[in-house]
Amino acid sequence: MLEKTDLSKTIINDEYKKSEKIFKARLGELQRKAWELKIPIILVFEGWHVSGMAEDINRFILSLDPRGYNFHTMCIPCYEDSLKPFIVRFWSEIPARGKIAIFDRSWYSTAIIECLGKEKSEKRMEKCLEEINYFERQLADDGYLILKFFLHISEKEHKERFKDLKKNDTLFILDENENKGRQDLDFVHNYNEYLPFVEKLLEKTDMRYAPWKIVEANDRGFATLKIMMTATHAIETYIEQVTRIPAEQTIKYLNIETRDIPELNGSILEKVDISKKMPADEYRKSKKLYQQKLEALQYELFKKKRSMIVVFEGWDAAGKGGDIYRLVENLNPRIYGVLPVGSPNDVEKAHHYFWRFCEAIPKVGHITIFDRSWYGRVLVERVEGFCSEEEWKRAYREINEFEEILTKAGAIVLKFWLQIDKDTQLERFNSRQYDPEKKWKITADDWRNRSRWEDYKIAADEMLQKTSTTNAKWIVVESNDKQYSRIKVLKTTVEALEKELKI
Amino acid sequence: MLEKTDLSKTIINDEYKKSEKIFKARLGELQRKAWELKIPIILVFEGWHVSGMAEDINRFILSLDPRGYNFHTMCIPCYEDSLKPFIVRFWSEIPARGKIAIFDRSWYSTAIIECLGKEKSEKRMEKCLEEINYFERQLADDGYLILKFFLHISEKEHKERFKDLKKNDTLFILDENENKGRQDLDFVHNYNEYLPFVEKLLEKTDMRYAPWKIVEANDRGFATLKIMMTATHAIETYIEQVTRIPAEQTIKYLNIETRDIPELNGSILEKVDISKKMPADEYRKSKKLYQQKLEALQYELFKKKRSMIVVFEGWDAAGKGGDIYRLVENLNPRIYGVLPVGSPNDVEKAHHYFWRFCEAIPKVGHITIFDRSWYGRVLVERVEGFCSEEEWKRAYREINEFEEILTKAGAIVLKFWLQIDKDTQLERFNSRQYDPEKKWKITADDWRNRSRWEDYKIAADEMLQKTSTTNAKWIVVESNDKQYSRIKVLKTTVEALEKELKI
Repeated sequence: MLEKTDLSKTIINDEYKKSEKIFKARLGELQRKAWELKIPIILVFEGWHVSGMAEDINRFILSLDPRGYNFHTMCIPCYEDSLKPFIVRFWSEIPARGKIAIFDRSWYSTAIIECLGKEKSEKRMEKCLEEINYFERQLADDGYLILKFFLHISEKEHKERFKDLKKNDTLFILDENENKGRQDLDFVHNYNEYLPFVEKLLEKTDMRYAPWKIVEANDRGFATLKIMMTATHAIETYIEQVTRIPAEQTIKYLNIETRDIPELNGSILEKVDISKKMPADEYRKSKKLYQQKLEALQYELFKKKRSMIVVFEGWDAAGKGGDIYRLVENLNPRIYGVLPVGSPNDVEKAHHYFWRFCEAIPKVGHITIFDRSWYGRVLVERVEGFCSEEEWKRAYREINEFEEILTKAGAIVLKFWLQIDKDTQLERFNSRQYDPEKKWKITADDWRNRSRWEDYKIAADEMLQKTSTTNAKWIVVESNDKQYSRIKVLKTTVEALEKELKI
Repeated sequence: MLEKTDLSKTIINDEYKKSEKIFKARLGELQRKAWELKIPIILVFEGWHVSGMAEDINRFILSLDPRGYNFHTMCIPCYEDSLKPFIVRFWSEIPARGKIAIFDRSWYSTAIIECLGKEKSEKRMEKCLEEINYFERQLADDGYLILKFFLHISEKEHKERFKDLKKNDTLFILDENENKGRQDLDFVHNYNEYLPFVEKLLEKTDMRYAPWKIVEANDRGFATLKIMMTATHAIETYIEQVTRIPAEQTIKYLNIETRDIPELNGSILEKVDISKKMPADEYRKSKKLYQQKLEALQYELFKKKRSMIVVFEGWDAAGKGGDIYRLVENLNPRIYGVLPVGSPNDVEKAHHYFWRFCEAIPKVGHITIFDRSWYGRVLVERVEGFCSEEEWKRAYREINEFEEILTKAGAIVLKFWLQIDKDTQLERFNSRQYDPEKKWKITADDWRNRSRWEDYKIAADEMLQKTSTTNAKWIVVESNDKQYSRIKVLKTTVEALEKELKI
């Protein structure tokens, strides 16, 4: 994509000034429209080290209302960041609906740093590209407008600008802090080494939903204008699309194929033998045994630089809290954390549904227990109509991709579905309702969910079937008997760790 | 405080189990009550490396509902963090109202790491202690319950536990990642070097509103119980206090002294000569000159590892946006950022009012421009009654302390008040109202604020008087003439930078 670019393009100063003024006003207007329509926009800037990116970006953001955008620049990567899967740190930086996020270098430069000059660099790069493609497609599917610019200059221009910068001693802005060193960014100095590499990257990630625009940046005015014009055009087109197609249209289309699936498939949950029980003395013995094993295993996990994600889903009052309590009773809080997931707050609602979980994805050596999780998308959000049918249907694949990224980064993923029957739930609800010490545990929501038991069953069944993947299987836990449930969770976790850590 | 501690205290296992159960239930209950009452709680744990802190904390948090607490453990400090004033990173971690934040090591250990074995360590420590005392007092004043535990063991016990840990090879949890090294934490290994140091720290920060509790931790059961009992007692007492004293009582007391102040002081704003003007050609020339100077100065700031904070306050339509535009027009977005400050969202409202600004405090080498700021506390919040009289009165001192921390950390703080008269505002409002391209700029809020001009004037006058400090002076900018205003801001900024950077 780069080599055929005509870098001789220029613009006369007067014409530039006139056009800049027009596009500035237009961009400001479009920003306000996108804000009203709650369209989130992601603008990525990549390019040569001396392509004038910072100046171009500044011209661009001067058109915008500062309340409506966030600017992200690459800085010295935090050591903590490197302990999480590559793409997860960028998930945290996506804009809220209606806002614009501007990335001055992005996951692309980061991917290059992660791979270039390292062992197995090709394989690493493939993994990064896969994560990037998932990430961008999932965001685009969720209504994010993504536009990527590559600021391109010729080798001759590159050489000359470097010379100038060195003369003026202003080379070090990207390098942030000289004594900390940024040798990992040295590649941008070497034009010919970098070029074929970038070519490949651009080709593999130039998607309809997240296209690359090569910006001829030998002439700075031309570059600025091209960026403004391209962005203006893209936002205009997108707004037109969004306002034309009513949301219902897509849903209707998908409605047809779904109706009969549950009946054809039968139910996984109905086949579960929830009558399983464990006597008290066996429970006490097993609990002690597995908790001790787990205590030792957490340090093994830490030493072997693996991580673990444990997801708990299940019926209200199925015993998630109690199971989690026994699981972490002997663990070290410096290693594990519990994330209880309730209804999203306003800020969380304004983002893609993965966003609020990314902070809690454990770093290497750590464990996060999710008390409810991203599966809310295909459970409560589906049943209560908090998302569209198209959205929850798409979510199975999205979740599988998300968990694939986690497991490929070395995470052990365990997913427990706690299964009880309707009578047991009623019993527990009643005992909570009438016990002053437990009354706070039960709310109107619980009763409402109960009244939709059948709908939740259909949703849970489909979830179990569609998201049990090779590396992240669902484990259905028979939980009518609390003691049986607790031990099964403990035992399964211990065995999974032993297997994965080869103990 | 440590040397006189009786470390021989123990508890029998049976008694421990009985008491633990009681206190666990009690703590759970208190957590729910504090949640309802929106009391934010901060629990700090410090102590010897092998005092059993992690286990004690785990016992403690098992009593709590995970939805109601956050656990913060010390980990390898991010390089980015070290570029901001010491206490600012902890401001970001304070809990929301109703929540509990548990610190497994805290600003205390961080202060020790920042100072011990370094040049001018006494002076450094004094600065840290000052920041800590401001921080804790400001939080306590805002209704935060702060409780600090120091887990103390004898030298003999210390030696033995270290031996055991080395044998079991589980020493490295705090060290996180061996090859990255944590030599800075080595001090905790050396009992006798550390002891007098900690003694001093404890003495200087044992405040009525944020007391230290020494926990005798030779016996682990005893330590766990003491922590639980102390916390229970403290939360109970606090809840009792909060529910007893109605908020109005304090306000009434303060009401008396305030009424006549504005009249006695006269008005700073009335003396401002807002008729100042600048002709168009002088404006163009000056703008070019100062913008060029500023462009070069930003890199000097970067190289000299200083930072700059520019605060803009003033009447609606006084031209803040336009002044900021000209200020950043030639700057590098990798160096500067603009934070527009509007009404706080729900998450922000649930924290101390400083909280939402801490993320944007610039790191060394950077510039943040605040378009409105923490001064909202003594302006809009005061006038509209969004905070109590006691709160905004206290805020003058709090703000001065906050800015003192910033300037002592090397930040250049400039505060511009943009002054226009009431007629000019009306003119600008009308021109916005009737111009389709500017109409979005004006809202009902603007008209409402205008109707309270006199109240805002009193508030602004008092603010200018009480928060003009040696290192962070207010600059009143005559802004009836936009061109004059823009150049005064540019020129003042350039001159301040030249003076501070000694150019």
